[in-house]
Amino acid sequence: MKVEILCIGDELLSGKTINSNAAYLSEKMELLGYNVFFHSVVGDLPDGIKKSFDIALNRADIILVTGGLGPTDDDLTIETIADYFGQTLVLDQSVIDKISLYYKQMGRQITEMSKKQAYRPNNATIINNTIGTAPGILLELNENKRTGEKYNSTKIIAAYPGVPYEMKEMWSSQSEQYFKLKSKTQTIVKDLKFIGIPEATLAEKVRDILGQNNPTVAPYVSAGEVILRIKSKADTKEKAKKLLLATENSILERVQEFYYGSDNETLEEIIGNLLIKHSLVVSVAESCTGGLISSKLTDISGSSKYIKMNIVTYSNEAKIKMLGVKEETLNKYGAVSKDTVKEMAEGIKNLSDSDIGLSISGIAGPLGGTADKPVGLAYIGIATHNKTETFELLIPSRFNRVQIKERATKHALNYLRKFILKEFS
Amino acid sequence: MKVEILCIGDELLSGKTINSNAAYLSEKMELLGYNVFFHSVVGDLPDGIKKSFDIALNRADIILVTGGLGPTDDDLTIETIADYFGQTLVLDQSVIDKISLYYKQMGRQITEMSKKQAYRPNNATIINNTIGTAPGILLELNENKRTGEKYNSTKIIAAYPGVPYEMKEMWSSQSEQYFKLKSKTQTIVKDLKFIGIPEATLAEKVRDILGQNNPTVAPYVSAGEVILRIKSKADTKEKAKKLLLATENSILERVQEFYYGSDNETLEEIIGNLLIKHSLVVSVAESCTGGLISSKLTDISGSSKYIKMNIVTYSNEAKIKMLGVKEETLNKYGAVSKDTVKEMAEGIKNLSDSDIGLSISGIAGPLGGTADKPVGLAYIGIATHNKTETFELLIPSRFNRVQIKERATKHALNYLRKFILKEFS
Repeated sequence: MKVEILCIGDELLSGKTINSNAAYLSEKMELLGYNVFFHSVVGDLPDGIKKSFDIALNRADIILVTGGLGPTDDDLTIETIADYFGQTLVLDQSVIDKISLYYKQMGRQITEMSKKQAYRPNNATIINNTIGTAPGILLELNENKRTGEKYNSTKIIAAYPGVPYEMKEMWSSQSEQYFKLKSKTQTIVKDLKFIGIPEATLAEKVRDILGQNNPTVAPYVSAGEVILRIKSKADTKEKAKKLLLATENSILERVQEFYYGSDNETLEEIIGNLLIKHSLVVSVAESCTGGLISSKLTDISGSSKYIKMNIVTYSNEAKIKMLGVKEETLNKYGAVSKDTVKEMAEGIKNLSDSDIGLSISGIAGPLGGTADKPVGLAYIGIATHNKTETFELLIPSRFNRVQIKERATKHALNYLRKFILKEFS
Repeated sequence: MKVEILCIGDELLSGKTINSNAAYLSEKMELLGYNVFFHSVVGDLPDGIKKSFDIALNRADIILVTGGLGPTDDDLTIETIADYFGQTLVLDQSVIDKISLYYKQMGRQITEMSKKQAYRPNNATIINNTIGTAPGILLELNENKRTGEKYNSTKIIAAYPGVPYEMKEMWSSQSEQYFKLKSKTQTIVKDLKFIGIPEATLAEKVRDILGQNNPTVAPYVSAGEVILRIKSKADTKEKAKKLLLATENSILERVQEFYYGSDNETLEEIIGNLLIKHSLVVSVAESCTGGLISSKLTDISGSSKYIKMNIVTYSNEAKIKMLGVKEETLNKYGAVSKDTVKEMAEGIKNLSDSDIGLSISGIAGPLGGTADKPVGLAYIGIATHNKTETFELLIPSRFNRVQIKERATKHALNYLRKFILKEFS
């Protein structure tokens, strides 16, 4: 069954609110095996809403509507739906009772304005809103009473408030189960995450797989990494899982070396788990990233188990004084060099008495680049008690300072991850 | 002229990506005096894209398209637009040259796949993409060559990549000026940024101004701060500016003490300018924010002038060893206390030999909170050669770890800003 998400609200069209509701409902419906083919956003006027219904009913079987259910004069969704389908509005006493209770709990009397929310089209059932006052409605229609048009297959219209947390609560408590029972397909989705390979190169390597029908595989780009999303469908969850695994394996056979994790896994989380598993403490000495690596690592709850101290040595003096980098090294090779990050990594490891020292020094730009050492160049050092490795990184200078910091941080974390896997696992 | 935003991409329909592009372009077009009436999202298939153009051309004069411009086989926007309007695809040598250079800089050869991005419909002009490989296109059409249909007024179609930062760069560098020239109303917008006051309290103080018609004033909330957006319209820029200034003054008369800057000004930028103005060097010792304050301060180009070193002391041992915090203080008052941040601020100032030492220690959660010291509690210390001040902060515990780090960072920077203004200006 084809699905359209229709979001109603001037705040979306003005750009004030980003439409997170459409993404949420889409993801939920896709996971239940439905195909979401369209999103539409329209303002709070009945005429525009009705025209959007004309279009949506022509191309979809299920229309999920958000927004315009509140008590104010510009909330017109329910009235417009009733009018569009030739339904009368009936007062739902159960809703009146709930709203009255809600107001009573706040020490107030129900207002005339809020009674408006208790009306529903006569054929609709109520989707309860336990955390707000505006309920949703669910309609299953085989015809349009106003125009007399008979639908080939049943049209399902479900309307939710625009407030994201209310809509989400109503979805999980009531609609998810309803749509699950109506679905015939089981869908499983997995995101494979890659770093250190451009999208086009990765796509080239798995081009035939990207052309597959089931599971489908689609590439996405996100700040310095590439994601391949595998989506598998079957009549049982087990069959869908099996299909997905086969595709995942074919992909990883070719590009395993760039793969770091799946779904919501982050580099800092994966590193945290590795450090805990091997009882390691890490410390970081940063120059160009200015504290961002340290901040990312401490985004993980429990990171105080494996992080004791980190340091940002922005000046040469601080590198010398705090980390014991030799003045000679800085004079001979410069602050942005393999030799300097080697001494920084060893220095922070010793200073903090940790198992691993990670260091970075580079040119975040936009100033400070030279022909030899352009903006985007960075060196990374990783030291343990018995060895130190260094890596060179060149981030395209088309990125701005903050983007270069972000990408350098991701690459540094990825080198750290690979180093721990290689040396300690 | 009516505007529709048409976003193309399976990642939007699957809910993987939230459609921030539509909000961005809507906001920008509204600022130029245009009315955005519709957003649509459709998948990467030519048939769906063409049907969406049928609908959009029927109800809008300007169609802004995002997505589907990349090198892979499922990027079909350009081909489909050419096909829809009966245009031929021509190879643009300037684009080929740019992509080749891009690959060369990465030490690679241009791939066959990426050459695809150099084709444009024959009547289109190129919108340059200086930070990625896929250019955009701009079409002004009075007729559809395929169907022979003549349009009553010129239709404008502009297509951008789906990657937000590429689209935004192309918008600001090229399209904004283009659409500004075509607009008949002069709109001026100014965001006034406040910190340390809740939205409802601020709104109450300027309630009558929020009810105004022109300029309009609308409140927004953004990670720990409140923004009042003033939007002023007139037939000349001067008139619009004058109207805006009057409203800005009435607002600031009432709530100046919470105001820190306007538009894209950030706390770290304002602080950077103050430090340079007074020739001051700052250093930071962080615990709960884990390096985020340091990272924010170094987001500013030229920050190496006023930052020499910062330190993240996550463990008590590091606070003692590196900053000279007394063991007695930690035992008696705990790591999260006024006494500890006082010694941390003085310690980092002395260690780094800087003019100002800033420190923070708190509970980022979700674990580690107690009845006395709940998650979200933080202390901030600021030390100079002749005085040290401390501040208490309580961030609502409904925020997650990363949000608490962000908010604590903003407040610490704001205390630093106010301290410099008070002590050095």
